[in-house]
Amino acid sequence: MIRVGINGYGTIGKRVADAVSAQPDMSVVGVAKTRPNFEAEQARRRGYDLYPAIEDRLDQFADAGLETAGLVEDLVATADVVVDATPSGIGEQNKALYEEYDTPALFQGGESEDIVDVSFNARSNFDEAADADFVRVVSCNTTGLSRLVAPLEEEFGIEKVRATLVRRGGDPAQSGRGPINDILPNPVSLPSHHGPDVNTIFPDLDIDTLGLKVPATLMHMHSINVTLDSTPTADDVRETLAGESRLLLIDADLDIDGTGALKEYALDMGRPRGDLWENGIWSESITVEGSDLYLFQAIHQESDVVPENVDAIRAVLETSTAEESMATTDEALGLD
Amino acid sequence: MIRVGINGYGTIGKRVADAVSAQPDMSVVGVAKTRPNFEAEQARRRGYDLYPAIEDRLDQFADAGLETAGLVEDLVATADVVVDATPSGIGEQNKALYEEYDTPALFQGGESEDIVDVSFNARSNFDEAADADFVRVVSCNTTGLSRLVAPLEEEFGIEKVRATLVRRGGDPAQSGRGPINDILPNPVSLPSHHGPDVNTIFPDLDIDTLGLKVPATLMHMHSINVTLDSTPTADDVRETLAGESRLLLIDADLDIDGTGALKEYALDMGRPRGDLWENGIWSESITVEGSDLYLFQAIHQESDVVPENVDAIRAVLETSTAEESMATTDEALGLD
Repeated sequence: MIRVGINGYGTIGKRVADAVSAQPDMSVVGVAKTRPNFEAEQARRRGYDLYPAIEDRLDQFADAGLETAGLVEDLVATADVVVDATPSGIGEQNKALYEEYDTPALFQGGESEDIVDVSFNARSNFDEAADADFVRVVSCNTTGLSRLVAPLEEEFGIEKVRATLVRRGGDPAQSGRGPINDILPNPVSLPSHHGPDVNTIFPDLDIDTLGLKVPATLMHMHSINVTLDSTPTADDVRETLAGESRLLLIDADLDIDGTGALKEYALDMGRPRGDLWENGIWSESITVEGSDLYLFQAIHQESDVVPENVDAIRAVLETSTAEESMATTDEALGLD
Repeated sequence: MIRVGINGYGTIGKRVADAVSAQPDMSVVGVAKTRPNFEAEQARRRGYDLYPAIEDRLDQFADAGLETAGLVEDLVATADVVVDATPSGIGEQNKALYEEYDTPALFQGGESEDIVDVSFNARSNFDEAADADFVRVVSCNTTGLSRLVAPLEEEFGIEKVRATLVRRGGDPAQSGRGPINDILPNPVSLPSHHGPDVNTIFPDLDIDTLGLKVPATLMHMHSINVTLDSTPTADDVRETLAGESRLLLIDADLDIDGTGALKEYALDMGRPRGDLWENGIWSESITVEGSDLYLFQAIHQESDVVPENVDAIRAVLETSTAEESMATTDEALGLD
């Protein structure tokens, strides 16, 4: 069994912990947390050992009635691999700790690519993470774009990608974020950083991205244009995308008109926390005009990187092939 | 003086009435209204004669203390031209009335192109409306796209336009509309109707459009890609667009980060109702990658067609050239 430490138990960390626990070949040895908040309380209820990240706050955990098993250093020392799900920029500060204990670590997409050996997407470049010390699981948006680019590139060839990312302003629990009743070019200067981030996975891909922020919390929405090297029919494209386990083609009969209904669908399916791990692609939107492919896809910012983190663990430790790992992850999560 | 009748005194009609009143060569002979609501009350305060559109409701106007000057038929009979600003689909029903009195009429973008002689955008095809009986001033989004396409086509040539229209869910006063906290592909099937609508102005333009709806009321936002026939610099494009009176280039120094601040800017400028008649283009967003131009523009759905309606009056009656009309309209409105 692979012993996985989770450093940071917020939006991503708590989901990765549960996904790791569900796998047949790995277990959570503990989670590191800075504060004894509701998520720390839930971690204990789920049976995860708590390792406070700040020694001075041990008293706060005790006052909150939360048993602790040591400090974050102890967790890093005992784990075979650490998933760092701390806020953007904190991962970089944690790197020295992982080096000290010679423990490989996975960072999230908010960290700079400069601090890692490789940026990772399971479908696109699993093997490049073999034996790496530091891997970055790319962001939710880059993950969503990479999952789409990989099969299109293989099947039809890609001349250029142009994508407008209509991004949620904040997650549902981030009560301090906006906008309210506004539409923001974000960033104003183009292209946005998302295109170059996709180039960390596909170095030779010609891609321009534009970002906007809107008053919504549930998911991002991508308006996608891919100029292909060939001229398939829309049905050809549907067939190719339908073969990908982490692309969910939303049939028109389901009457899912946007991110709200899609989130409700994930809840009705019994997904934990209503997570949609896959890209949600409106099948009806898939259109080919000459060599230009268009489609809309929804990206659940809180969860689409979760299966990728699980796969990255196996990739780094070289315990599985890409295909085996993705199949194992998906089956354990109940992702058909 | 051109005698202008306004049929429908809602979002567009009331703005066109005020814009017509401000012109040196035309006046409002009256406005037709179905209900004696707050807008009817304001019309009287502004001195516009009221012509109820439904005879059975004359009592309601009387009960509301609103003097009337006749019925809509009387208004059509006396006007040199009617601006029909009734809700989508009602204009078509009104067409027989205009034919009966041989009064030329301008419809709004919500009407079908099939009921008119020509679709109209002042910058793009003013002369085509000469002596027409029925003209359609294209929608806010099509107007915004046409104003951008015309100078780009003339100066650089256009190979293809791809645009994602991130649309406001409803106007500020449309309390029954959504979405709330959602992002909707709308329409789901691609391309959206906006591209073909631009083709009513530029028949040979290769354009694909995608539409989304978001929880915002202030303005639409366009994420624009234009593949040009040439490779100008971003500054070349800025210079060309800056020469257009109905394109407002938003300088980065103004710190206008989205539609909310842009609306506030229009209010601070003293614009009536805070209207932004121009396309609001973020100067910093103008980017050229090879032959691909990108930019963001905001479109004020309630007002950008207002100067176009004024120009269409002169175009139909052949009282002015395009350049003279646009200059007169802009000066009268205080649009620099």
